[in-house]
Amino acid sequence: MTHRIARLREQLEEPLLVTNPKNVLYLVGFDSSNAALLVDDERVQLFTDFRYIEAARAVPDVEVVQTRRAVLSELAERLSGRLAFEASTLAYEQYQTLEQGGLELVPRSGLVERLRAVKEERELDTIRRACAITDRVFERLTAVSFVGRSERDVSWDLTALFHDEGAEGIAFEHIVGAGPTGSRPHARAGDREIGAGELVVIDAGCTVDGYASDYTRTFATGPLDGEAKEAYQVVLAAQQAALDGIRGGLPALEADALARRVVEDSPFAGTFGHGLGHGLGLDVHELPRMSTETSDVLEPGNVVTVEPGVYLEGRFGIRIEDDVVVTENGIENLTGFRKDLLEVS
Amino acid sequence: MTHRIARLREQLEEPLLVTNPKNVLYLVGFDSSNAALLVDDERVQLFTDFRYIEAARAVPDVEVVQTRRAVLSELAERLSGRLAFEASTLAYEQYQTLEQGGLELVPRSGLVERLRAVKEERELDTIRRACAITDRVFERLTAVSFVGRSERDVSWDLTALFHDEGAEGIAFEHIVGAGPTGSRPHARAGDREIGAGELVVIDAGCTVDGYASDYTRTFATGPLDGEAKEAYQVVLAAQQAALDGIRGGLPALEADALARRVVEDSPFAGTFGHGLGHGLGLDVHELPRMSTETSDVLEPGNVVTVEPGVYLEGRFGIRIEDDVVVTENGIENLTGFRKDLLEVS
Repeated sequence: MTHRIARLREQLEEPLLVTNPKNVLYLVGFDSSNAALLVDDERVQLFTDFRYIEAARAVPDVEVVQTRRAVLSELAERLSGRLAFEASTLAYEQYQTLEQGGLELVPRSGLVERLRAVKEERELDTIRRACAITDRVFERLTAVSFVGRSERDVSWDLTALFHDEGAEGIAFEHIVGAGPTGSRPHARAGDREIGAGELVVIDAGCTVDGYASDYTRTFATGPLDGEAKEAYQVVLAAQQAALDGIRGGLPALEADALARRVVEDSPFAGTFGHGLGHGLGLDVHELPRMSTETSDVLEPGNVVTVEPGVYLEGRFGIRIEDDVVVTENGIENLTGFRKDLLEVS
Repeated sequence: MTHRIARLREQLEEPLLVTNPKNVLYLVGFDSSNAALLVDDERVQLFTDFRYIEAARAVPDVEVVQTRRAVLSELAERLSGRLAFEASTLAYEQYQTLEQGGLELVPRSGLVERLRAVKEERELDTIRRACAITDRVFERLTAVSFVGRSERDVSWDLTALFHDEGAEGIAFEHIVGAGPTGSRPHARAGDREIGAGELVVIDAGCTVDGYASDYTRTFATGPLDGEAKEAYQVVLAAQQAALDGIRGGLPALEADALARRVVEDSPFAGTFGHGLGHGLGLDVHELPRMSTETSDVLEPGNVVTVEPGVYLEGRFGIRIEDDVVVTENGIENLTGFRKDLLEVS
C-alpha cells in the first residue's frame, strides 16, 4: 500500500497525523479502534496501545511505536513542530490535548478521504463481490412472503442470508419499513407486523474484506392503490434519470438535480427530502456526496449509491437504491437485482 | 426523561449543545445519526434533518426544528451568544463551523456521560436482561465442540444464538481468538481452524433496548499444559480480587490495582497490558474507566466490566470478564455463567 502513502505525500505541506481508524486501515492495512499514523516525507510511524501491538508489528513499511492507551496525550509529549491533523474527525478535546503539547497544529480535511473516494481496481472487485452477494440475498429474501411477519423478523432473515451467502458481516443495521414506517427514511426494523397491500422499504448491505454494499428496494405485499403505484414509477424514473446522466466530471449537485427534477415535476413534489446518494467503500457513507448541499465533483472510480425516494408521512415510503461505479462516460451498475415493482406476498 | 434534563441543567453554566447521538438518545429518547439538542434553562430544542423529522415529532417535551442535513452550519446561522459544546465528541471542524457563526463557545466534557455512568433502576433492569440472555447464549455455545471449526464460524453461532434468545442485536463484533490469536486482546474472529488442546478467548455481548452486555470467557479445547492452567488460575484470582474489593467510593485506579497486583506477583508479571474494565450502558465503552491512567471514582449505580487478562505473544491469551453493578458496599454481579476452566472439546 506504499502507493497510497506516496499519493498522500503529494498533498502534504507538513507531516500529517492520521487518526481516523478507517484512514489508517486504508493507508497501511492496520485495523484497530485506537491508533495514530504519522506520515512525513521520510517515515510512516504507527502508534498504538498494547491491545493491538502484536497486530501492528505485522504491518509492513511502518515503524511501530507502542504507547499508552491515551495515544494522543503521549504524542503531545513526544512530538514537536508543525503538524497537520484530520479536522473532520479529531475531537476538539483531542485537538486541545495535542495543542497543550506545544505543537503548531494545522487543520486539514478530507486528504485521505479524497484518495479513498477514487477506488483502485482491487477495491472495485471487492465491492463487486459484496454486490453479487447482495443480489443473491435479495433474490432469496423475496422468495418468501413478508405478510404476517414483523419487520424485525425480516431484518434477521437478511442477516442470516448475508452470512449464508458468504458475507463478512452486515454493513449497517438494516432498515425494514412497512407501510407508514416506510415514510421515515431511516426507521429501524420494529415489531410491527407487515400487512397485505403495503409497501415495504428494505435497505440493507453487507461487507466483504471491509468494503460495503448498500441496496434499497421497495416491495408490495399485494395490490396497491393507484397513488402508490404512481409514486413507485416516479421514483424509478427519477433513479433512471440519474443513472443515465451520471459520469465522471459531473458536479454532484447536478447529479442530484437530475433525479430531483423528476420528482419535483410529479404530483410528489417536495417529498424527496434527502440527497441522491453517497460514496461507498470502507465506510457506508463516504465521499463524494450527491445532494443539494454538495460541492463535490464526480470522478471516474467513485463508487456511489443512487437512491431517490418519495415519502408520504404516516402513509408509505418508496426508495430505490443501486450501487454504481462512475466511469469516464457513464456508469457501471453493480446492482443486478430487479427493480420493477415486485409483489412479495 | 425530564428528570435527566433536570439533572443536566444543574451542571450548566450556559446553554449546552448536545451532539453525541447516544447523549441525545439518553436525554430525550431520540435515536438518530444526525441531531443536535440545545438545552438551556427554559427549553429543550431538537434539531434534525428530513430523514428523522417524523420520528422527532413524536418526542415529548422538546421543540423540534427541521434543519438542512448540515445541522451545525444551520445552527451557526441561527444561534448567538455563549454556548457550551461537547468537546470530547465534537470534531474540530464542526467546532470551526460553529465558531464562524460568531458564537462564544465553551468546551465542556463528559457532562451527559457522567450522568449516564450512574444507572437508574430501569436501566439496570435492562442490562440485567441483556446479561441473562448472554448467560444462556454462553451455555448453549459451549454445549457444542469448537475443535475443527473456524473462529468465524463460532462467532456466527454467537450471533445466531443471541437472536434466538431474544436479543435486539449484537453489541459489538465478537472476538473469538484461538491459540496464538488469543494473545491479541482485540483480535477479530478469523478463518483459523480451532485445534485441540488450545485456549479460546471469546468476548461477546448483546443489546436489549439499546443497552449492552459484554462478557469474556476463555475455554480449553482439551487438556492444557501446566503453564496455561497456572495462567488461568492467576487471571481468575486477579478478577476475584477486584470483585471482592470494588465498591462505591473506590478510586478506579485502585480497583485496577487490586487485580493488577495479583498478576504482577505471579510468573505472568507484565502480561496484563490493558485496563481492568470500563463502564457499560448505551455504549459498550463508557464511564467510568478502571485502568492505570484513570482519575475516575467508582459510584453506586455504575455498571462496569471486570476483565483482567494475561497475554503471551504468539502462544495464547486468557481473559475473564464479568459485568457488575457497583453498590455502596460492594457489587451485584450480573454475570451468571461459570468461570472455572471449562473444556469445550
